[in-house]
This record gives sequence, structure tokens and C-alpha cells, in this order.
Amino acid sequence: MNHLAILGPGLLGASLALAVRARAPRCRVTVWARREAAAAEALQAGICDAASTELGPVLKGADTVVFCIPIGAMAGLAEQAAPLIEPGALVTDVGSVKAPVVDALAPIFEKAGRGHFIGSHPMAGSEQAGLAAASAGLFQGTVALLTPHPGIAPGAQEQAAALWSLVGCNIRTLPPGEHDAAIGLVSHLPHLIASSLVDFVCAQNRDAIDYCGNGLRDTTRIASGLPEMWTEILATNRAVLGAQLDAFIARLQEISRDIAGGNDAKLKEFLTNAKVGRDRHIKRKTP
Amino acid sequence: MNHLAILGPGLLGASLALAVRARAPRCRVTVWARREAAAAEALQAGICDAASTELGPVLKGADTVVFCIPIGAMAGLAEQAAPLIEPGALVTDVGSVKAPVVDALAPIFEKAGRGHFIGSHPMAGSEQAGLAAASAGLFQGTVALLTPHPGIAPGAQEQAAALWSLVGCNIRTLPPGEHDAAIGLVSHLPHLIASSLVDFVCAQNRDAIDYCGNGLRDTTRIASGLPEMWTEILATNRAVLGAQLDAFIARLQEISRDIAGGNDAKLKEFLTNAKVGRDRHIKRKTP
Repeated sequence: MNHLAILGPGLLGASLALAVRARAPRCRVTVWARREAAAAEALQAGICDAASTELGPVLKGADTVVFCIPIGAMAGLAEQAAPLIEPGALVTDVGSVKAPVVDALAPIFEKAGRGHFIGSHPMAGSEQAGLAAASAGLFQGTVALLTPHPGIAPGAQEQAAALWSLVGCNIRTLPPGEHDAAIGLVSHLPHLIASSLVDFVCAQNRDAIDYCGNGLRDTTRIASGLPEMWTEILATNRAVLGAQLDAFIARLQEISRDIAGGNDAKLKEFLTNAKVGRDRHIKRKTP
Repeated sequence: MNHLAILGPGLLGASLALAVRARAPRCRVTVWARREAAAAEALQAGICDAASTELGPVLKGADTVVFCIPIGAMAGLAEQAAPLIEPGALVTDVGSVKAPVVDALAPIFEKAGRGHFIGSHPMAGSEQAGLAAASAGLFQGTVALLTPHPGIAPGAQEQAAALWSLVGCNIRTLPPGEHDAAIGLVSHLPHLIASSLVDFVCAQNRDAIDYCGNGLRDTTRIASGLPEMWTEILATNRAVLGAQLDAFIARLQEISRDIAGGNDAKLKEFLTNAKVGRDRHIKRKTP
């Protein structure tokens, strides 16, 4: 990789720029931003060699292009960018939903005969947003999911794997639809539940929050994420997420029956399984 | 306070011992443990001046007695301890449910004519358990809820407030029943939901957890708590918690309808309210 073009200097885009500059200092990094002020800020923060609100100068000569913008804006920007992308460049994105993004973007670059597209989803982020929260280590030790689709250009998957490996990710591969089901379960549904819990507690008795410990704080951290971004993510994965939410509601109804019925053995079995599940499978591995 | 007797050297009991030794080094601290090995460990770890599985020597001369054992064991131990407690001693506990504990314990000490009881609930803890996880700073900056009941001895509330203030707590006061409603909402329900989420994700697609980011880890941290302890807590607060869970399920059903119906404006409004609620009311205040 000799020249990386990043479209969108938000938390992920700016962190990617910082990570690549730290690990591949000879790679040119250019940044496109929608707003003049954001382009100026990216340049001033030293995350790139050049920044512009014009796609042409940002994409010219880039062998790697990464869309780091909200998923709802991707197809529109892809249409504008496609004619300006170097023919053999790797093109990828960081969207949290993949099947609709891949279905929309892959044909745009194929039709233009410019750019070899593959969907990516680095499982990095924070409830904080924007360049100010960016860091070169954001991707270190996280999983980057690649979602190759039928008709993908030869070599695109290997190039994308090399990009995300460079910034510290562990690479996994899933078809776009399987990605959306898996990530619906481990990211979108938890976000929805955390937000629902805040919403519910505030509506029921906001004063009670004065008494909360760290449990409620941690359980709801992700509810502080950007509402616009998360509305797009949840809405884009609507079909999958809706079915998962309904199944989760059905499970809560079972648990409610066990509580009401005084079935404490069942309650303990459920809490034991949950502890084992979390300790074995979810708890952060020691670095 | 000249002599503090702690019944149960678990996470809370051992942390209380450490905190009092750090802040009131002239106060004698004695510890009762159910198991010989636990008493020996408490002594060896240096958290107290004396430890025993006998209540008599631990309680003799103590002006303050704190029950730090699982709530299901409290009434039984209180019956044994009452005749041995110094008549004017402050007696309190750290149970996570208050109305049933206060209803059971207060009459025991009153009947014995020994000990002035008031319920306490320091909102401190961790998903880790036991003396090994204890620390002198566990209570610093947390809220300690006092739950005075009708017929409470004069001065008991002030003494309990002084105890928890000494170890760094901010004192709040609520009647036992209001405590259980408020803490059901900000602690017991979140625990149940976090555990349900682990249980659900593991049942649906355990492999998907391999892809999870920090969101799922934080959202489910409290599900790693002790299943025995939490079964008792949730079961003891059954009536309150069951009603709260059913109301939460009803709210999730509304959200499910908004998702299925493509009502993205409603979804965004809900996510925005959740972010505002968390940022304003739940997020940890900077220390």
C-alpha cells in the first residue's frame, strides 16, 4: 500500500489514518471530508498528507480507498467517487451492516470498471465520536470481518486482509448475510437493549439513577453512541434485528414466568449458564 | 467507633475491614466467617485483629456489627448473634434487597433487646467475589442507601451514616420498600437483562461471540456475578422485579413494532432520548 485514501475523518477514518501513519510511515494518506472545516481539522491534526472536500485530488493515485462514512451516505458517495478511482485500487468500507452495503456498492464500482470492492467491518469503535476521539491503537486486537461476495475481484480479499492486519486486526471472513445475522446478535441487539434499558429506567423513575452503581453504567455505555448513526445501522439491519428482538422478548417472557412462579431453581440455572457463557466466551481475553 | 465486627469476609465484608483499618487505624476489627479456612484467610490477609467461626468472641465488645453475608442466611445468623450482641451496638447489613431483610432482622434484635438495627445498602461491588477481590477503596465515591424503618432506635441512622461516610460513601436515605423499587430498576433489572442477553446470544449463535467488540463485553459484565447470590437477590425482590420486567418487555414490544413498521423517526427519537438520558444521568461523573 503506497497511497491510502480515507473518505470521512470520523472516529474510524481518523483512527485508521493514525494507525497507518504509525505503522507504514511511507504510505501517503489523503482524506476526503464533506465539510471544509473537517478537512482543515484533519490536516491540522496531522492525520494525513492532504485533505479536501473534492474527491478528485484525494483519490488520484490512491491504491486503497476506504469509505468511513455513515452507511446511508455510502451509495451516493460511491456513485460520485467511482469514475475517479484508480482502476485497480482496492475499495472497501467500515459499515456495520454488510449485505445492503455490498449489494449497493459492489455494482457501482464494477459498472464503472474502477476499483475492486470488498466489504469490511472492523469491530472497533466507541460511544465517543469524531476525530477528537481517534487513536492509532483503536483497531489493535479487534476483529476485522471481511465479507467477500460472488464476483469479487481476485486479490481484493487478500489486500483488504493486509490493510486491517497492518493496523492490528485479527481477520475473519463471512458472507455478507451471515455477517449481518452474527453482528445483529452481538452488536446491534445489545445496542438496542442497552438503549431500551436507559429509556425505560428514565421513564420509570429517573431519580433512582442517583443510586446506581457501576453495573448500570457499564450495561448502558453503548447507549451513548450517536443516535443518527445507530438509527441507520439498526434500520438497515431491520429484518434480522426485528426477528432477533422478538426471539429475545420471548426468552424474557419465559424468565418472567419463572420469576412469577417462584421457580428459583430455574432462575439459578439461567444465571449460572449466563455466568459460564460470559466468563468463557465474552470476557475480554487478557491482552 | 472503637470496635467493628464484620460477619462474613467476602468482597464487601473484607473491603469494609480494609477501608476501616485504613481510615480509622485505632478501631478494632473482628471478623466472623462460616468456614475455618475463611477465618484463617482473613487473619492471614491482615484485614482484621481477630477472626473466628464463633460469634461470641467476634461480637464481644463490638459497638458496630455489620452483616456481610448472603441475604438468605441473614435471619438465621441474626437469631444466633442477637443474644451475643452488646445491648447498645449499631447493627446493620449490606443486603441488596431491604424490605424483606429489615422485616426479618429488625424484630430479632428488638426482641432480644440487643443491638440497634438499621438496613444499609452500599452500592459497591463487582462481578468478582471474595476476599481476594477486596480493596480499601471499594466504597469510595459510591452511594450508601440507609433504609430506616418505623420504630428504629434513636441515633442508629446517624451512626450508620458515620460508618459509611468514613469509608467514602455518599449517604442517601429511603424507606425499605422504596429502596427495593428503585434498586430493582437500576440494579436488579439490569442484572437480569445482562444475564438474559448472554444466555440468548449463547443459545442463538455462540460462534458469533468470536466477532464481538467491547460493547457486548461491557453490556454483559455484571452477568459474571455469583449466580447463588443473584438468585437470592432477584428472588427476594420477586414481586417488584417481576412487574418491572413485564413493563420492560412491553416497552421492547413497542420498539419491535417501530422496527418492523419501518418507523425510523420513532427509532431515532428513542435512541436520542436514550443517549441524552445516559449522558446526563448515568455516565460516571468525573471523580
